[in-house]
Amino acid sequence: MTTGVGAGPVDAEQSPAALLKTLDAGAVTLESGLLAERQAVNRRSALPHGLRMLEEAGNLDNLRIASGHQPGRFRGRVFMDSDVYKWLEAAAWETARAPSAELAQRSERLIELVAAAQGDDGYIGSYYTVAEPGRRWTDLTHGHELYCAGHLVQAAIAWRRATGDDRLLAIARRFVDLVHAEFGPGRRETTDGHAEIETALIELYRDTGERRHLDLAAFFLDQRGRGRIGPNRHDSLAAFQDRVPVREAMTVEGHAVRALYLATGVADLYLATGDPALLETLTRQWEDMVESKLYLTGGVGARHLAESFGQPYELPNDLAYSETCGAIASIMWSWRMLLATKQSRFADLIERTLYNAVLAGVSLDGERYFYVNPLASNGEPEHLHRGGCRRKPWHLVACCPPNVMRLLASLAHYVATRDASGLQIHQYAAARIAGPRATLRIGTAFPRDGRIRIEIEETTDEPWTLALRMPDWCAGASARVNGREADASAADGYLRLARPWARGDVVDLDLPMPARCVEAHPWIESTRGCVAIERGPLVYCLEQADHPDARVADLEIDAEAPLTSSWEPELLDGVTVVRARGWAVDTSAWRGRLYRPIATAAAARRPVALTAIPYYAWANREPGAMGVWIPRGKDRP
Amino acid sequence: MTTGVGAGPVDAEQSPAALLKTLDAGAVTLESGLLAERQAVNRRSALPHGLRMLEEAGNLDNLRIASGHQPGRFRGRVFMDSDVYKWLEAAAWETARAPSAELAQRSERLIELVAAAQGDDGYIGSYYTVAEPGRRWTDLTHGHELYCAGHLVQAAIAWRRATGDDRLLAIARRFVDLVHAEFGPGRRETTDGHAEIETALIELYRDTGERRHLDLAAFFLDQRGRGRIGPNRHDSLAAFQDRVPVREAMTVEGHAVRALYLATGVADLYLATGDPALLETLTRQWEDMVESKLYLTGGVGARHLAESFGQPYELPNDLAYSETCGAIASIMWSWRMLLATKQSRFADLIERTLYNAVLAGVSLDGERYFYVNPLASNGEPEHLHRGGCRRKPWHLVACCPPNVMRLLASLAHYVATRDASGLQIHQYAAARIAGPRATLRIGTAFPRDGRIRIEIEETTDEPWTLALRMPDWCAGASARVNGREADASAADGYLRLARPWARGDVVDLDLPMPARCVEAHPWIESTRGCVAIERGPLVYCLEQADHPDARVADLEIDAEAPLTSSWEPELLDGVTVVRARGWAVDTSAWRGRLYRPIATAAAARRPVALTAIPYYAWANREPGAMGVWIPRGKDRP
Repeated sequence: MTTGVGAGPVDAEQSPAALLKTLDAGAVTLESGLLAERQAVNRRSALPHGLRMLEEAGNLDNLRIASGHQPGRFRGRVFMDSDVYKWLEAAAWETARAPSAELAQRSERLIELVAAAQGDDGYIGSYYTVAEPGRRWTDLTHGHELYCAGHLVQAAIAWRRATGDDRLLAIARRFVDLVHAEFGPGRRETTDGHAEIETALIELYRDTGERRHLDLAAFFLDQRGRGRIGPNRHDSLAAFQDRVPVREAMTVEGHAVRALYLATGVADLYLATGDPALLETLTRQWEDMVESKLYLTGGVGARHLAESFGQPYELPNDLAYSETCGAIASIMWSWRMLLATKQSRFADLIERTLYNAVLAGVSLDGERYFYVNPLASNGEPEHLHRGGCRRKPWHLVACCPPNVMRLLASLAHYVATRDASGLQIHQYAAARIAGPRATLRIGTAFPRDGRIRIEIEETTDEPWTLALRMPDWCAGASARVNGREADASAADGYLRLARPWARGDVVDLDLPMPARCVEAHPWIESTRGCVAIERGPLVYCLEQADHPDARVADLEIDAEAPLTSSWEPELLDGVTVVRARGWAVDTSAWRGRLYRPIATAAAARRPVALTAIPYYAWANREPGAMGVWIPRGKDRP
Repeated sequence: MTTGVGAGPVDAEQSPAALLKTLDAGAVTLESGLLAERQAVNRRSALPHGLRMLEEAGNLDNLRIASGHQPGRFRGRVFMDSDVYKWLEAAAWETARAPSAELAQRSERLIELVAAAQGDDGYIGSYYTVAEPGRRWTDLTHGHELYCAGHLVQAAIAWRRATGDDRLLAIARRFVDLVHAEFGPGRRETTDGHAEIETALIELYRDTGERRHLDLAAFFLDQRGRGRIGPNRHDSLAAFQDRVPVREAMTVEGHAVRALYLATGVADLYLATGDPALLETLTRQWEDMVESKLYLTGGVGARHLAESFGQPYELPNDLAYSETCGAIASIMWSWRMLLATKQSRFADLIERTLYNAVLAGVSLDGERYFYVNPLASNGEPEHLHRGGCRRKPWHLVACCPPNVMRLLASLAHYVATRDASGLQIHQYAAARIAGPRATLRIGTAFPRDGRIRIEIEETTDEPWTLALRMPDWCAGASARVNGREADASAADGYLRLARPWARGDVVDLDLPMPARCVEAHPWIESTRGCVAIERGPLVYCLEQADHPDARVADLEIDAEAPLTSSWEPELLDGVTVVRARGWAVDTSAWRGRLYRPIATAAAARRPVALTAIPYYAWANREPGAMGVWIPRGKDRP
């Protein structure tokens, strides 16, 4: 049983407010299709690559130096240890999927490094140990000590669940004991500038049942909104979610990743306590996000400046920040909201975010990463303070790559849940689900195809309800049970099939996914007069590589003409390409100027066949321009 | 004779490469109309307000503490002294316009403060003297010591020209002597992170004829592009214009104000030396700016992040930075380009920038200032990292207010020039011009009205050429001389009237200025599907105050319907309002979501009369939304 990224059971005992419970950690196995392929690349390429990068960037040396086993100076930023922990968490989930001697050996080597770096009092933090000895806990705002501790806890729980080995968990618990000794009422009354410890402590509470971890998490959450964390020369209270107490927050604001890690912790606290004020603030914040601050891809955090949420409707395409970690944090949060409410909208957003904002963060070969995920690019490989169109092997601030790794390794956690009535399927993929009442096999080529066959392989005799999410993008879904049409209406976002099930029963769900054009709220400046193409859960984009005879910036689409989809197995590891009718506008009259009196005649343009590829697959060929939002050419003046 | 902001003669002797020469400092008097009114408010309100602010913010105390006359700690940022100098420069130009005992007394008090703060060796810099004694010249990248010195030189020259009093100039020259002793080949070989000293030294060269000042300016300019200034933890080479040597620059890049102060210095060096490589790089950079990085208002520097130029076509409206100082720097640079080339395009840009980006930087009452000048606002008074819709009395970094003051006080400098053939008029305003060959009186209500009458009050007997700029926004100009139609064709941007002139001759120039709709390059994301309204040199905007029954964000314009203009003497100190036909779109169907499948039916909308006001006059009523670019509603799908 697990909450996905950040392990830990969500069951009745420690999470009484969860309307849905998680399945056992190994209950779901992804068997084929896009997600399974991304998982395989993650295991085969990304994890070994990540370990090399951790060695090159100094993360491992920092731990060696901290342990006194090696001389040297600290390298990198204060939070370097957290990247090691996130890699370990990814390795743990991979080990849970399928044990591997090599992975075990590598992980154990890292665990030994961490063990050696732990001080006699339990402290681990290579930055303060090596670079600023004696300065522990003096700069909570920027120091990331509790943030790193949180990732250690999550990695440790994952590793124990994967292997039964509790060495890392013992290390983490010793560190947490020190945190208990240092922080709390009457002791240090403050918290970390970057939320993470809260959700980790509640995981530890769920894992151990020790109430003091929940209490300390609640204490940390209650430190916010008192002006203790944010203010200094450069930063603002809002940037650190320190403007108002967590129960009073009306909006998502400030540093996007921090805001959503914090919301994740608050959601964990709600699951554990059922405090309705927490669910209220979380719902307000989540709605603020999806109603005014969300990219079509699910990406969040519009601004490069302070890596923060923008104002409502401030969603530039080329200047989008949309940090990969922000998208991952959004999934962490929405997953807990789904458990709290069983509302399909949270699973809808997880799907959108996973297939677009997150998958775009890593190259198809698993060895290059985007930190920034713009929705348009002018084709320059790298920009200062603007997303480029070329992923990098690693980053100076390398939070994103190992975060992608741990999410991909734990994707199976997000597929299904259980409750007293039965089983809920939230995400579709070819998979085997060993639920508490039944074992199911899901056959599908999703998201290439919307036809999904669910076979009951084993089941209890009592009737139970199979709930199938009807994605928000789908119109005209239909279902059959053993070949007979079932009522596919789903007022609350789930098709519920309540019946006695028998071995061999088959549910056929058909989610038609014709390519479609979508439009954006007219208050968004960057998407005015444009449409984007979607198909199923995938957002599409136009890339320069598919339009050799025109600049992407000159392309327009005939949004009323039919879109055609075709599977291209050789392209970009296999993608469904969407073709559209459009034009290339002749912008040569604009040469040398930016503004002119409105033209009386329409600009010359020539018909062009547009070829759109899934956004997640962009920037895997030669560097070039890209655009998600395409100007509508049909009725332009 | 003066180059405008930053005093100093541009004549044949020290500026052989100038195709146009400046007039004497007092040659032009603005008599009425918008610019004269802005000048009057500047004198009456802004200057006294500015002095109060300099007292409140600590700028004057810093000088008192530096002189040892007062105990205390340094307040504010390292460049606080420069604000005092810019205020003094403004006061000098005002004194030149019309002496005032009060102004003289206030200025002399400041000059005494500066004199007292000067060290025995000539150094002045209250930050290093008070806050970091012994650390002079140790952080050229951020220390602004030479930047402050440059503003001191400019103020001193202005004051000497205005009053004949050379006390401040003597102070400045002693400081410059110290700079000579410290910097140069074989001494400190570096320069200031913020350009300014270069243009100031060349002013001093023009003023004194001392070649060593020109040489030192050239030395400082040549320090760039060697990686000596820019690199440190946070900043990049491009941000400091330190990526390539000045002669190799192809684009404007980095911090916009620094980039254009630097270009101003390079242009001064060109005027003094005629080095064609300098004019080449300046022309390339200027064209890069106007062809890809310029707001419709003339504002420059799109990004809040690093206050920098964006990539080509990166010109967001609501997120525009468009710092007031950037617009002023653009005028300083274009003025020198005009002198260097006599090409009207530079005067065109000065006009656009002055009437829009600069005038919007200050409230109509002269006592509130914008640092950031967005082209759209959602109506929130203040934003973090985004322009608000309410000006502030002063800023923590208060470069803009006194920069506006010195520009407004010296506006007359930009009106006309001379060359061997005669007189050129670049900017239109009711004015008296005492040129070398003739005295002219210009009667006009410009920019309210495009009819301009020029009367020859005195003239030499030999024929000479009166050149009148034909603004780039004007179609269908006509001219009459003594009532008889003249050929108003102007291939090179100037109508040239070459003839023997006599006292009483009258030229009537008619520059029709119907309100017009303009459109922007289709590669600019933020203006797609929109038009803006212009009339004469003025850019217009829609403000919430004029549309009580609709949100500005919901307004659309019928760009093909006629626009009507009407003078409203009581509104906003007198403005010509432009009315248009439009609609308010019903966006209620969007409540709660950002994206949807494209609608098959057009959204409901109701006709609304649009009322546009000049952009410079926005944010002078209750805080509210504003937009320059208006979606075209006519043919939307």
